[in-house]
Amino acid sequence: MIFRDELCIATNGRGTYDLSGNVHQLVAASGIETGMCHLFICHTSASLMLCENADPEVMRDLEAFMSRYIPDGDPMFAHTAEGPDDMPAHVRSILTHTDLTLPVSDKKCMLGTWQGIYLWEHRLAPHQRRIVVTVQGE
Amino acid sequence: MIFRDELCIATNGRGTYDLSGNVHQLVAASGIETGMCHLFICHTSASLMLCENADPEVMRDLEAFMSRYIPDGDPMFAHTAEGPDDMPAHVRSILTHTDLTLPVSDKKCMLGTWQGIYLWEHRLAPHQRRIVVTVQGE
Amino acid sequence: MIFRDELCIATNGRGTYDLSGNVHQLVAASGIETGMCHLFICHTSASLMLCENADPEVMRDLEAFMSRYIPDGDPMFAHTAEGPDDMPAHVRSILTHTDLTLPVSDKKCMLGTWQGIYLWEHRLAPHQRRIVVTVQGE
Repeated sequence: MIFRDELCIATNGRGTYDLSGNVHQLVAASGIETGMCHLFICHTSASLMLCENADPEVMRDLEAFMSRYIPDGDPMFAHTAEGPDDMPAHVRSILTHTDLTLPVSDKKCMLGTWQGIYLWEHRLAPHQRRIVVTVQGE
Repeated sequence: MIFRDELCIATNGRGTYDLSGNVHQLVAASGIETGMCHLFICHTSASLMLCENADPEVMRDLEAFMSRYIPDGDPMFAHTAEGPDDMPAHVRSILTHTDLTLPVSDKKCMLGTWQGIYLWEHRLAPHQRRIVVTVQGE
Repeated sequence: MIFRDELCIATNGRGTYDLSGNVHQLVAASGIETGMCHLFICHTSASLMLCENADPEVMRDLEAFMSRYIPDGDPMFAHTAEGPDDMPAHVRSILTHTDLTLPVSDKKCMLGTWQGIYLWEHRLAPHQRRIVVTVQGE
């Protein structure tokens, strides 16, 4: 059985957005008991991430890490058509994930206690982000 | 057909642990001839990796690389609740993989000659790590 | 329904190779309307990537980024059996992707407008690279 839907997320610019609730709702709606949930973000300047979901400082530290090694406006980058955060957004994207697959059991994603599902917007400006959700199983 | 099981791995602290044998055993036990094997680690401070399986110096070099750019105790990090290796473990985790999907044929994972499946423990102390294994196919 | 095939790509050494056309052809050939397409590269010194497909400077910038932080011949690396680009190729590989899963609808991969599917060869010399393609669905 295959269930397919999409999430459209309006971001307020660079930062992380917790999708765990949205994904859990879609998995429950799919009616699929056991199988896999696949998330795919249709962009190359925003990505998906499973990360610690309890302490907001983790997200701040992740941003600090990315900013240290992939600073906006780095003169190394030639691709600046959309501004100083254009190429850094692509690099952040390829170093994290465009797709995630999560096991499903009892109509729920089998996440660990501290695992949250995040959209990571890498552009400074707000964007509309589209995520294709597929639940496959029995 | 869906087969589901779990691996529980007791680590001795930071380092890599070869799971290839464990995964091959579960794939054979699943009875699935052709399909996919999915591995999911239920943690945010340990990860999964496909890597060269012949020369132990590769693993030492990977640790050296991570330690250079994500050193324990980096003053950039505010999230230090569990010690100087807490936030570095989350960063190492998001830069590698929480889930892997491998093609299955003839009841075996179709790995290349030099590919091994590894759990990478990023915390310094020993931990119990749980990996959900799903084999899906015909 | 499961469709399985392989792509064999002869690279000319380090750089990116657009596989989008090859993958779209195989997905169409599979006859599968709705489901998932999985790509798996059977190597640890070449990887897969979804990335911006319009401006060739993006690929040049990605190479510049990797070369800055993972330079060939770095004295930190002990694993140099196959030359100064041997260990850097493994590091680049673990920081990107060995497998990708893409949603399929109407017999096509549901890629965003700017997303292309790339093989990234990390070794300096030409290599033969093998990619297992699985399409699963209805």
